[in-house]
Amino acid sequence: MEIPAEDIAPMARAVELAGHGHGTTSPNPVVGCVILDSAGQVAGEGFHAYAGGPHAEIVALAQAGERAKGGTAYVTLEPCDHTGRTGPCSLALLDAGVARVVVGVPDPTPKAAGGAARLRAHGVEVTSGVLAEQAERVNEEWLTCARLGRPHVTWKFAATLDGRSAAEDGTSQWITSPEARADVHRLRAAADAIVAGIGTVLADDPLLTARPAGQAAEGRAPLRVVVDPDGRTPPSARVLDGQAPTLVAVADDVRTGIEADLLRAPHHATDPQLAPDRESDPPRGDVDLIRVPRRGAGLDLEVLLRELAARGVVSVFLEGGPTLAGSFVGQGLVDRVVAYVAPALLGSGRAALGGAGVRTIGESHRLTFDEISEIGPDIRLIARPNPQPGREK
Amino acid sequence: MEIPAEDIAPMARAVELAGHGHGTTSPNPVVGCVILDSAGQVAGEGFHAYAGGPHAEIVALAQAGERAKGGTAYVTLEPCDHTGRTGPCSLALLDAGVARVVVGVPDPTPKAAGGAARLRAHGVEVTSGVLAEQAERVNEEWLTCARLGRPHVTWKFAATLDGRSAAEDGTSQWITSPEARADVHRLRAAADAIVAGIGTVLADDPLLTARPAGQAAEGRAPLRVVVDPDGRTPPSARVLDGQAPTLVAVADDVRTGIEADLLRAPHHATDPQLAPDRESDPPRGDVDLIRVPRRGAGLDLEVLLRELAARGVVSVFLEGGPTLAGSFVGQGLVDRVVAYVAPALLGSGRAALGGAGVRTIGESHRLTFDEISEIGPDIRLIARPNPQPGREK
Repeated sequence: MEIPAEDIAPMARAVELAGHGHGTTSPNPVVGCVILDSAGQVAGEGFHAYAGGPHAEIVALAQAGERAKGGTAYVTLEPCDHTGRTGPCSLALLDAGVARVVVGVPDPTPKAAGGAARLRAHGVEVTSGVLAEQAERVNEEWLTCARLGRPHVTWKFAATLDGRSAAEDGTSQWITSPEARADVHRLRAAADAIVAGIGTVLADDPLLTARPAGQAAEGRAPLRVVVDPDGRTPPSARVLDGQAPTLVAVADDVRTGIEADLLRAPHHATDPQLAPDRESDPPRGDVDLIRVPRRGAGLDLEVLLRELAARGVVSVFLEGGPTLAGSFVGQGLVDRVVAYVAPALLGSGRAALGGAGVRTIGESHRLTFDEISEIGPDIRLIARPNPQPGREK
Repeated sequence: MEIPAEDIAPMARAVELAGHGHGTTSPNPVVGCVILDSAGQVAGEGFHAYAGGPHAEIVALAQAGERAKGGTAYVTLEPCDHTGRTGPCSLALLDAGVARVVVGVPDPTPKAAGGAARLRAHGVEVTSGVLAEQAERVNEEWLTCARLGRPHVTWKFAATLDGRSAAEDGTSQWITSPEARADVHRLRAAADAIVAGIGTVLADDPLLTARPAGQAAEGRAPLRVVVDPDGRTPPSARVLDGQAPTLVAVADDVRTGIEADLLRAPHHATDPQLAPDRESDPPRGDVDLIRVPRRGAGLDLEVLLRELAARGVVSVFLEGGPTLAGSFVGQGLVDRVVAYVAPALLGSGRAALGGAGVRTIGESHRLTFDEISEIGPDIRLIARPNPQPGREK
């Protein structure tokens, strides 16, 4: 498709605006909008900032006021055509008298799509697919979830240059630098759920919260998910500490008593300081348990992900555990890999990735490196599957 | 040290010139020289191009002619003060009437050092340590060998993002791209020796030559070295094919018959086409065997490296074999790591690096990432030990 040169800059700005919504719009998409008046001057800008808040088009139209008439609207995602918590943006654009609408990516959801068609039907010129790659990338979590019916999965790992994430004796603190760990916390905070395997919970007893221990949480806390096929999560695990909601996924054949054990467990059961207050602990509303069919040595992760999507989880941050990571990779359920590579060699110890169903070199899971950055002394590589699940090319 | 600002540009140019000698000056250093006349204009440039050829200073002085008188010479390495295949450069600089000499790195060898002292004794102003890091880096192979009495070792590996260099079934062709493999051939060609372990020779039967199979060799061929503690190299191995000299290193207790087996073996013994010519094969002058003390499950690699240095090997390119690489890393004998990381995940199969003597995370071999480049779809990372062997800081 030939893209008119004058459409590039405003759409690039709309993509930049969309990015400002990262981590706060879920379960909604991130969307950016720029409105040019009929003379081609910027009349309004907007982005979707939080679920329930005004859509990007509405913000930009409000700013543009009368200047929108006869102008052009650049929107990273096809304007919605349905009435949710807000009215349809297609109507708002028509009401404002916009003459042309330029779209980055079409809306894949049956419920909201149709905005472009309605605009065209009312005589508005619609151009679609402008800076589609960038508009796709900025909204990849939501688009993946919309197309596939399961959350977008980011697998993060930290390893030495030779691919080890722990030494022979199991020690792993710290392979990467404080700068890299701070970057991880930033990425975690933008996800709807943080997922770890039972191996990691038993070995490291992680908090799985979006900030370093001891630091106060800001805003919403991502859901913590433990993939625990045999129901081995100890009631005293820190992941059950009540600082954030937690979901424990067990196999559907696990003993029935497990629910009572986990859901009744007092907060901070391991902290003797709190022992006297145990009786007064409120009923545990922050821990939930679901049962998922087994698959191989683990769980059917696609089923688990669909359950998470049903709970409003659009993006998953997967960390902790080569076994679980191997299952996700092997089941084709990783959409983005974020690797922190430390300038160190171990030569033995735990590999970053466990069995992923590959027997021979031709079956390797191919990726594309999309970003390379230096983070302190470490290197961060961002890669995506090639081809990407749910994408046509 | 305060570096005069006007010294930066000519020394940077001298470093650039030195680099032109990479891969052809061994066992000599790479050296670059720039001569400014007394007015500060460039009067001559030179670099050492091949062992036995004129030194960088001589080339630059010849070009500068009378204009060298009262001028300044920038040399990446302290001018030599001894008569080898050519006369001492210190005398040549004095004869030309140079008023000032600016040096990047002092010469660490007792035999050649003293150039700066002689120049000073004759009233020439000498400034040392200008762009020392760059002058050090461009000549790192020779300087390492001069300081430590053993060749500079580059360990190259190719692996997936999760640190695997072969799949579960042993297949590894190809993990990295043609572009990355071409880059490897370029680096190989610049080395004096290519080293692989017996495991790699038995598994992959590599040629260990500096160019793809079937392509004609240009210039000198690096020495091929097989680290073969128990003397298991098959007489039919391609590494013994006579295309380049080969050295097989066995343990000092290996059966005495091994020499005869390997040194008598006909060329191309596996090629039936050549069978009729076997009788007429010339005596094998291109294969040599040395005996080295054992260390752990392998050989004492420091002893092996000193043997190689005695044979004029200044730089070693180590590839092929996680076991051997682990021994080199564990014995502190790797000076540079070149890692080709492919955008792929395996989750099982051979790790890039085998046991390197590390038990716990605090003992990991720390490096510094010095270069990050994209090579085709792959990423090349160059890292060096931190601290570097033989360097003071």
